[in-house]
Amino acid sequence: MIAEIISVGSELTTGMVTDTNSAWLSRKLAELGIMVARHTTVSDDRESLREAMQASSNRSDVVIINGGLGPTRDDLTRYALAEVLGQPLESHPQAQKQIEAFFVKLGRPPSAADHVQALIPKTAAILENTIGTAPGIEARVGKCRLFCLPGVPREMKRMFWELAARMAPQGQPPRPPVVIRSLHTFGSYEADLGRRIEHFMTPGRNPAVGTTASDGIISIRIVAQDTSQTPAEVPAGRDERKLREVLGDLVFGAGDDTLASVVACLLTDRRLTISTAESCTGGLLAKNLTDIPGSSVYMIRGYVTYSNESKIELLGVPVELLQAHGAVSAEVARAMAVGCRRRSGTDLAVSTTGIAGPGGGTVEKPVGLVYIALADRNGVEVRQCRFGAHLPRAVIRGRACKTALNMVRLGRM
Amino acid sequence: MIAEIISVGSELTTGMVTDTNSAWLSRKLAELGIMVARHTTVSDDRESLREAMQASSNRSDVVIINGGLGPTRDDLTRYALAEVLGQPLESHPQAQKQIEAFFVKLGRPPSAADHVQALIPKTAAILENTIGTAPGIEARVGKCRLFCLPGVPREMKRMFWELAARMAPQGQPPRPPVVIRSLHTFGSYEADLGRRIEHFMTPGRNPAVGTTASDGIISIRIVAQDTSQTPAEVPAGRDERKLREVLGDLVFGAGDDTLASVVACLLTDRRLTISTAESCTGGLLAKNLTDIPGSSVYMIRGYVTYSNESKIELLGVPVELLQAHGAVSAEVARAMAVGCRRRSGTDLAVSTTGIAGPGGGTVEKPVGLVYIALADRNGVEVRQCRFGAHLPRAVIRGRACKTALNMVRLGRM
Repeated sequence: MIAEIISVGSELTTGMVTDTNSAWLSRKLAELGIMVARHTTVSDDRESLREAMQASSNRSDVVIINGGLGPTRDDLTRYALAEVLGQPLESHPQAQKQIEAFFVKLGRPPSAADHVQALIPKTAAILENTIGTAPGIEARVGKCRLFCLPGVPREMKRMFWELAARMAPQGQPPRPPVVIRSLHTFGSYEADLGRRIEHFMTPGRNPAVGTTASDGIISIRIVAQDTSQTPAEVPAGRDERKLREVLGDLVFGAGDDTLASVVACLLTDRRLTISTAESCTGGLLAKNLTDIPGSSVYMIRGYVTYSNESKIELLGVPVELLQAHGAVSAEVARAMAVGCRRRSGTDLAVSTTGIAGPGGGTVEKPVGLVYIALADRNGVEVRQCRFGAHLPRAVIRGRACKTALNMVRLGRM
Repeated sequence: MIAEIISVGSELTTGMVTDTNSAWLSRKLAELGIMVARHTTVSDDRESLREAMQASSNRSDVVIINGGLGPTRDDLTRYALAEVLGQPLESHPQAQKQIEAFFVKLGRPPSAADHVQALIPKTAAILENTIGTAPGIEARVGKCRLFCLPGVPREMKRMFWELAARMAPQGQPPRPPVVIRSLHTFGSYEADLGRRIEHFMTPGRNPAVGTTASDGIISIRIVAQDTSQTPAEVPAGRDERKLREVLGDLVFGAGDDTLASVVACLLTDRRLTISTAESCTGGLLAKNLTDIPGSSVYMIRGYVTYSNESKIELLGVPVELLQAHGAVSAEVARAMAVGCRRRSGTDLAVSTTGIAGPGGGTVEKPVGLVYIALADRNGVEVRQCRFGAHLPRAVIRGRACKTALNMVRLGRM
């Protein structure tokens, strides 16, 4: 089964909004054993949308269209679908009822525009929308099954889950014929890592292994297919084990793991508490540590000490240290972590101080210079990082946080 | 001039990575007056890539391909381009030199795989890559100009800027024939807002006006085109003024403005300082306030008081208040903001306390209940928010921060 995804909206083709629906749908379809071969994004233009729907339907077994179903005048998906099917739009009584029921919940009457959302082509079916006004539409174009979902991510996802069972290959075993796994590494360069795992990356090999670098994290993708002798899980699992062996400590997680989620598990498992003292990362590290549900078990408190006064008052950093070495120094990072740990009474404390830019750099202390310290009962580890002065502020702050989390992950504790 | 963008990589079609390059390229091309009609994303499959290149070249004046130029075996863009052109690949001497020079900078020799990056089709030209190994490729397919750029966003952007001047319409005035503007609002629903500006959204109208909702922020897009009488700026500016008039205080900014950047400007202009006391947002609010360069002028310090003890110790919240009302209450939000302002000595202080979920909700205090307080010299404003219990943790935290920033924006101060 091959699928394609079409995203609709001039907010996407003009770049005002980044499409995240296609990536989400691709992951969920892969979990059902349906490989996505292509994403297409078209503007709110009826003819382009019609042409894209037609082309995708010719190439694929399943096409998911998201967006263009709403009540406003730039929503054209239903009209394009009607043209592809060569059918007029008709008001669907059940869709009418659902729209009216939804507005009862909202406590206000639907407008004339809202009723447009009940129009669907004659042979199409509706997909119920329990959390929004626009019902989805399901139709068949030749041998291809075509699903029109809303563009609002929450509504799209909810509707997708209701479809998921139906979209799985029929008459096939529940085991998916394709297995996709990923491993995530931190602390190496892509070319170096690529060389170490080059023999996994031969073209035509099953599993197919590829790498992707994204802001310091290099991910390795393992895509295994069933053969007549062996289900896909077997080579996928074997590759994962071998890659972990080759890469050792560089691998911090797999699948949906992030550095923060891995650190969260580790702290929870070992019943360790943590506190943060941030200067250049300004709350991002605390934010990362509290992204995970249940974080109150390990995350006790955080300080964002942007000014020197707050470093002195809240963390007990000696004035003399600030005067002698400046706020961006190994000495101050160390004093911040030690002070933070003592005042918070936590097992661990992490501090960051650096120059996130774009301004504020000097020859001795350029933009991108960040000191990170990790204090535990054994002492303090301080690391000096130089994240290239050309990098944007958000990247420098992000790398500093990843490095801090990775220090916690690799710490002896 | 019509352009299309093709993104290449199985990390994109499998959904492991979200494509942000297409949106960026679309915005930058629009600034040059080149409208992007379509984005296509294909997997690392030579035939799909060839077919997509061919189809886009037939439809458009400019095609930008990003990704698939690297040294690893899943990088197939150069091979697909050679097929489209019907030409063999040849090693390009200048590209060879650039690759070797780049590795001198890196302090290590290039591998055999790195040399593959110098192969380009006979009639194509190279685009220099000053910050990475893979040069870009420029070719002509029929009347269409085709540019292959690296997939790494930093390298892609840098190479794009060098192209930008050349890609602008030739023999045309520097004024772009299309003007895209956007306004951003917070505090309304899309349907309500849509009704208020319905008369701007007539199909075929110039400018075309559309709306997009994203996690509480509703953005309005104005796409104006030149006519024979009037340059596009005129109707774009007129619509922007009228929309601002209709929507009043709901509009917080335009273009690249975010709630955080608008608040940053406002605090800087009025020389006001701020501090934060966060419970459920766990550092995200401080992070938002320090995302902006120069934030040390207004952002003095932040507290992440996740535990009750830290609310008492760091902010002076009375124990009795926590016992009587619980940590998630208007009373505690108020005490946190007041305590934070007093201890930080700032003009303003903002606090958040709530249940971000997915666990921890009760009937009286469901997931999504958040109290936000803003303290200033006139007193304290507390707001109770109920962000639907079904929303994910990240959305609830994000909405709480946006509401807090919006309170600062609208505060009398």
